[in-house]
Amino acid sequence: MRKIKKALISVSDKNNLQIIGNFLSQNKVEIISTGGTQNFLKKHNISSTDITKITGNPESFGGRVKTLDFKILSAILFDRENDYLEAEKLNIEPIDLVICNFYPFKQAKQSNSSLDNLIDNIDIGGLTLVRAAAKNFKDVLVVNDPEDYSELIIELKNNKMCSSENLRKYHMIKAFNLVANYDSEIATSMTQLQNKKSLRLSFYEYETLRYGENPHQKAVIYRDFNASKGSFLLDYEKLHGRSLSYNNILDLNGALETLSGLSRKGCCIVKHNTPCGLSESTEKSMLLQLAWEGDPISSFGSVIAFNFTVDKQDLVFLHFDDFDKANRKFVEAIAAPNFTNEALHYLKNNKNIRILSFDHNYLINILKKSEIRFIPGGLLLQNSNNKKFEKLECVTQENHLNIAQKQEFIEFGLLAVRQVRSNAIIIVRHHQDGSFQVIGQGSGQPNRLNAIKLAIELAYKNLTSQSDGKQNVNNIFEESLLISEAFFPFPDSIEHCAQFGIKTIIQPGGSIQDQKVIDSCNKHGITMYFTGTRHFKH
Amino acid sequence: MRKIKKALISVSDKNNLQIIGNFLSQNKVEIISTGGTQNFLKKHNISSTDITKITGNPESFGGRVKTLDFKILSAILFDRENDYLEAEKLNIEPIDLVICNFYPFKQAKQSNSSLDNLIDNIDIGGLTLVRAAAKNFKDVLVVNDPEDYSELIIELKNNKMCSSENLRKYHMIKAFNLVANYDSEIATSMTQLQNKKSLRLSFYEYETLRYGENPHQKAVIYRDFNASKGSFLLDYEKLHGRSLSYNNILDLNGALETLSGLSRKGCCIVKHNTPCGLSESTEKSMLLQLAWEGDPISSFGSVIAFNFTVDKQDLVFLHFDDFDKANRKFVEAIAAPNFTNEALHYLKNNKNIRILSFDHNYLINILKKSEIRFIPGGLLLQNSNNKKFEKLECVTQENHLNIAQKQEFIEFGLLAVRQVRSNAIIIVRHHQDGSFQVIGQGSGQPNRLNAIKLAIELAYKNLTSQSDGKQNVNNIFEESLLISEAFFPFPDSIEHCAQFGIKTIIQPGGSIQDQKVIDSCNKHGITMYFTGTRHFKH
Repeated sequence: MRKIKKALISVSDKNNLQIIGNFLSQNKVEIISTGGTQNFLKKHNISSTDITKITGNPESFGGRVKTLDFKILSAILFDRENDYLEAEKLNIEPIDLVICNFYPFKQAKQSNSSLDNLIDNIDIGGLTLVRAAAKNFKDVLVVNDPEDYSELIIELKNNKMCSSENLRKYHMIKAFNLVANYDSEIATSMTQLQNKKSLRLSFYEYETLRYGENPHQKAVIYRDFNASKGSFLLDYEKLHGRSLSYNNILDLNGALETLSGLSRKGCCIVKHNTPCGLSESTEKSMLLQLAWEGDPISSFGSVIAFNFTVDKQDLVFLHFDDFDKANRKFVEAIAAPNFTNEALHYLKNNKNIRILSFDHNYLINILKKSEIRFIPGGLLLQNSNNKKFEKLECVTQENHLNIAQKQEFIEFGLLAVRQVRSNAIIIVRHHQDGSFQVIGQGSGQPNRLNAIKLAIELAYKNLTSQSDGKQNVNNIFEESLLISEAFFPFPDSIEHCAQFGIKTIIQPGGSIQDQKVIDSCNKHGITMYFTGTRHFKH
Repeated sequence: MRKIKKALISVSDKNNLQIIGNFLSQNKVEIISTGGTQNFLKKHNISSTDITKITGNPESFGGRVKTLDFKILSAILFDRENDYLEAEKLNIEPIDLVICNFYPFKQAKQSNSSLDNLIDNIDIGGLTLVRAAAKNFKDVLVVNDPEDYSELIIELKNNKMCSSENLRKYHMIKAFNLVANYDSEIATSMTQLQNKKSLRLSFYEYETLRYGENPHQKAVIYRDFNASKGSFLLDYEKLHGRSLSYNNILDLNGALETLSGLSRKGCCIVKHNTPCGLSESTEKSMLLQLAWEGDPISSFGSVIAFNFTVDKQDLVFLHFDDFDKANRKFVEAIAAPNFTNEALHYLKNNKNIRILSFDHNYLINILKKSEIRFIPGGLLLQNSNNKKFEKLECVTQENHLNIAQKQEFIEFGLLAVRQVRSNAIIIVRHHQDGSFQVIGQGSGQPNRLNAIKLAIELAYKNLTSQSDGKQNVNNIFEESLLISEAFFPFPDSIEHCAQFGIKTIIQPGGSIQDQKVIDSCNKHGITMYFTGTRHFKH
């Protein structure tokens, strides 16, 4: 325990300053202060010693040099055990507490200040005080954050105005992290002056997982120091169930990313990091079933997300209260901005399910983010893929599609296909009530024809098991869209589509074989649109 | 331009110090120096002013306080334009050049020093000098790196001992980055004292790409400040061709990652971030063909990598010198640690191909790395998946497999399957000459049965096109392994395997349906091994 007799206060952020000032003053701690801080204290009738009385030097050069002084820094830095006599000889009295925060460099940066203003906001003296006090945390307490004053007051009250080692260590660590963040901001800003970009990312441990992608891999989740509340994927409130696993987290991420592009109410189902079900409608109670029907086998063991407040009615398709447990759908986690009490009650029939409520703004914000991908020794940073299409241009003789009526539908399909790993093919269905649904997909194929075969086979199987027979399936295929995330390199894909009764194909175009592909469509009476926008996802 | 009349030198790293000291001294620059630096200069007959003569204070507290002084920091920080009179009044003479580097905190950390020793190595004075000089770069030049002295000497010689604004700006940026790196090291070390992990990653712009994963996405490659030479994916030497695209980079990464696990000579072909071909052998000239045969359609437009010095003989399968251009294989990039001149000459028949030579140690080092995956507001960090299996346990009545002879073969298959996106199935073949080859795969399926169907269909097609007929295919299937990266949830997969004559299956096991799966194997005379190790990759 270290008694606090003398404190140095030099703060840029004067929030709560009178509170801590009053407390220290009332408890007979001598306060040393600098210009602005001193004026503020004076205004609140808190007396303090002017730092210039100790340094013997004036505050100079517009405040650039005030704390940068031999006596002040010695009073912070000297080793209380070994350097005691030397300090006495030099007439240095120890400073036991440093309260200091910095010129607002980041705010200056964010407000697009001039270079001169930016430079003025590079704090030298403050950082030196804080780094010195943190270095000597065995004896000195350093506090930066006005939010910490009230906690500090309680601690000091409880300990007869002494700081404990734990307290000093806690604040030392906070201080060094603050300093590192501050210097990182400066470094990246200054690097821009060379028209070069740099990137400094800082993270703290958020949770250690039981294991990673596989049981023999250790894994840790980190949260960005700069992430605002609600913007971190794991900022959801967990309403029920165990923690998410590594793979659950990936699936949740995929589901929310997919939902973020929808304009109406929707539901997304993800398994193995692939959105295997997606639906959109103005009528919400059918959404889960529509999404599930996109791949009823893969949906078992999935993560499901909604972009609206979920009621019980929206969930009954899960049969969680079915007497026959075999009818209950197996789901790993369900996420939504909110759940009604009835919905929660219903879901909790399943003891093992995780129920997650995420911030409403989350879906809006992830659209704006850049995408970072780590590679050995570096990373790739790119804009998120927010675009849907450049154009919608019919390139075939046949044109079934009434674009004015179908644009929303096409956008739904493009949104779905851009979330599936390349090569990716999606088949989407437009119900008469205005709902959209993915009914088949082929994903992750190095060969495009395989992706088409997979999508058609799945859609065919899904529809056959739901509808009254092959005739009906053909009708639905005729009204559905087959969407490819990239161009067709050969007409073989079209031949396969024609064979199964696909009537409308959407693709970016851009292959040297485009004409052969179009010719094949014309031969089979297929309508084809070019979007001009590729959607690779690897 | 700013004339350099007075320099302050205070360095921990004394490399090349006599060179810059001599130069400054001979050019009539007054040198101010501190303890160790002064002794070093003295030994080399370079005279300098003791800093204590200027500060009027002794070097105190075991060197903790020597440069931290009003006069010294004023001499660095004052605004030469606006504060000139104030400085004169205070008797402060400007310091025009600061040469300073820091206590070796990182080295202390790496040598597992005690906490006391770590704290001793937190530099306060040095950082203050450098940050102050960098802040005032309009007038002051700051240099940290002994490697920069020779360049500095040339610059000053050419400019009559003046520093240019560009020079000062360049070094200011370098200094602030150095400071940020230094403070980041301290922050992460100190955070560990709380048994908490933190992560600070810093990157600088390496290359701006023409575009990202898709043409409408902007993308930048960043290199880690701390990456050692040869350890960054893009540290390869480009021997021929244009820059890699974003997607080429992903494919190259996948190919090298896959090769990193091989123990013999091997070749990997990647398309759409999926390793669609992989081969291993002691005889290298067949490797490319063996890999290519794993998926001859997808291999078009791929990235190919080898883990050995490549000769022309290893490449002739590409037919790059074929008179009929239609016979020439289309490949985006070829990478290897080295190429013979003959190989290079041969490859350059193809004007568009990129030829890349990567560091020999690259493949060894990536195995040791952690894997980082960014998520909104944070990241997931996990150990790389380096493991192959926990056990090799036969679980069926039938046991064709002579493990003693086949272990290398099984390891090859496991290595291949762990690089393919889940759900993943691989079929591998063991040639009589001892080569191993992937002959079919199913990847990225949310449904395992689909992955099996894809793998078997592809293998069947590949073998039929190569061999003399169905009989031969059946023989090959009997001697091949089908490997699943995760357990089979239902016996339907086994039924499908049996139908196509698969005789040996390797899988981790662990499903509640394991017994049904084993029963199905027993029914069909299939040999099944459990490895106990799952290899999900999402």
